[in-house]
Amino acid sequence: MAENILVIGGGPAGLNAATMLSELGVKVTLAERDSFLGGNPKKFKYKFLFPDMQPADDVIGKLIKKAETNSNIKVYLSSEVSDFKENGKKFDATIKSPDGNETKTFDSVIVATGFEHFDPARDAKYSYQLFDDVIDIKDLERMMGEGNFVRPSNGQPPKNVAFILCVGSRDRHVGNQYCSRVCCTVSVKQAIELREHFPDCEVYIFYMDIRTYGFFEDLYWKAMEEYDVQIVKGRVAEITSGENNTVICKGEDTLLRGPFEIPFDMVVLASGMEGGPQSSEMAKKLGLELDEHGFLKPQNVTLAPFKSNKEGVFLAGACTGPKAISDSITEGGAAAMDAYIYAVKNH
Amino acid sequence: MAENILVIGGGPAGLNAATMLSELGVKVTLAERDSFLGGNPKKFKYKFLFPDMQPADDVIGKLIKKAETNSNIKVYLSSEVSDFKENGKKFDATIKSPDGNETKTFDSVIVATGFEHFDPARDAKYSYQLFDDVIDIKDLERMMGEGNFVRPSNGQPPKNVAFILCVGSRDRHVGNQYCSRVCCTVSVKQAIELREHFPDCEVYIFYMDIRTYGFFEDLYWKAMEEYDVQIVKGRVAEITSGENNTVICKGEDTLLRGPFEIPFDMVVLASGMEGGPQSSEMAKKLGLELDEHGFLKPQNVTLAPFKSNKEGVFLAGACTGPKAISDSITEGGAAAMDAYIYAVKNH
Repeated sequence: MAENILVIGGGPAGLNAATMLSELGVKVTLAERDSFLGGNPKKFKYKFLFPDMQPADDVIGKLIKKAETNSNIKVYLSSEVSDFKENGKKFDATIKSPDGNETKTFDSVIVATGFEHFDPARDAKYSYQLFDDVIDIKDLERMMGEGNFVRPSNGQPPKNVAFILCVGSRDRHVGNQYCSRVCCTVSVKQAIELREHFPDCEVYIFYMDIRTYGFFEDLYWKAMEEYDVQIVKGRVAEITSGENNTVICKGEDTLLRGPFEIPFDMVVLASGMEGGPQSSEMAKKLGLELDEHGFLKPQNVTLAPFKSNKEGVFLAGACTGPKAISDSITEGGAAAMDAYIYAVKNH
Repeated sequence: MAENILVIGGGPAGLNAATMLSELGVKVTLAERDSFLGGNPKKFKYKFLFPDMQPADDVIGKLIKKAETNSNIKVYLSSEVSDFKENGKKFDATIKSPDGNETKTFDSVIVATGFEHFDPARDAKYSYQLFDDVIDIKDLERMMGEGNFVRPSNGQPPKNVAFILCVGSRDRHVGNQYCSRVCCTVSVKQAIELREHFPDCEVYIFYMDIRTYGFFEDLYWKAMEEYDVQIVKGRVAEITSGENNTVICKGEDTLLRGPFEIPFDMVVLASGMEGGPQSSEMAKKLGLELDEHGFLKPQNVTLAPFKSNKEGVFLAGACTGPKAISDSITEGGAAAMDAYIYAVKNH
């Protein structure tokens, strides 16, 4: 009899773990709380992925198709793990789906429950939801994916746009001291896309540090040199309404050492990533540890980033911290390997 | 008969790939060019690892021990792949070791040939090798590992130390446009260690952007708040000799908008990472692609960061770009999974 492995979460990490395991003949149960596979990239309709602007569907779509068409993978949508308990070295889990409850015994478990986008409405200074033209990077990504680059307030092309980095990240005021890793690169990517779409539109990025780490740096050079994006070190302290249907960013340019008040047609907030309620639910239900930032805690951040504190339960993707899709896919592979080893040994 | 898999490179990525594969009963051949396992962390005697300051030996030593004591892993030290050719879906490789040449047929191959530290002597403005008290982060790491925190010139404790970030990274002048990802966090970690060891020593970090991404940010807060490390946005343009056996950093503070000339007892250069000659050798010998930065190129940076352009040959660790040890270990796991799938299918 083949090994049975439970994968919780159908985003990039869970999908890759499930498809790799299925190639070894493992029977995979894939439980996804949403009514579709693909995780946040699918939910928020990401269009092009950094760093190489490949269509998100070429990556996510491919993983979804593999999972949906593989007879070794049973997908449960709109489903959750309602009950979980250890059974010797194995695990008995009940999947609650629209078709009813099903309890199975699994040899090992991979938790890949992902992240939540930070809700910028939680920080009043950004006036998100107060002004139509203040949106965030996930809103803009979805709009651009729909071919809709215009101002929400009036449907007109923007003449100037500001990106504000570190919204909900590196900010103890909202409870998130950590950096969300990808928002700098997403913003630089979107700034380039805006400039491509509207060559006459001025684009500013207000930053604390530009963290286009590793080869993502190539995009940063490109934004400055080929697309003339204005990159300004400074913090925006307040967003207010201006004349002629504009929104005003007030703040301080820390390099020029002076205050600024600039009216923009659109402001895009680079919202960060949070563990979300599903991380604490998983921690409680499966007996896993949470870290101080509200994400699931690996057994050892260097030696075993994809092992949980519980033997036989593995972690992959953004449930252990903010990361790029490529990192989530890789962790899905590593967790699959480890979950398979455990399953083979204890089968 | 068990599958045979060749792992080239015995650093964190290769070690983890080898040990995980061995747990599935795979016969692993591990070829390492150096006379020891452990890669750069071992070669340069890394002492404590960011972000949680765990002893490097607890991580690397554990992986080495696992590899050395597992009967499924045959380790070849001071060895290289001298010949490589495809044999149907398999690969014939000759390992040239001090004991002679051995040719075997492998079901799949993992390339984990790592990186080289950038040699700061290549950039004359830093006066590395000209002044004893100008060292780099790998030198300091080794010195601290040996319990030796003092000035190389006179064996005295330093009264002030400067870290200069982005040496050999984000610098087209030396041919490396990319960011090396880890040098910011390594520098912040070492600054904390210096302040712990010499509470009266002033420590400065000169930076372009502080890229302590993700949870590494915690170390940055700690350096500023608990250790009073001075973090200065500015570029050092030149290092010269000063009075009283000091070295002078000349540059511009971009926040205060003024030039500075500060004498230091020690300067630590945050040297970056390069693909090194082994990447181009591997590319040539195995028929792999190199990227524009001189690292091995994955088939797809998002969907398949651990697959090479050649079916059956997989990539893991810093040979595909600068990364943290944790990332290399994870990639080792993912590449192991993929190499195992390929091996099982084509065995």
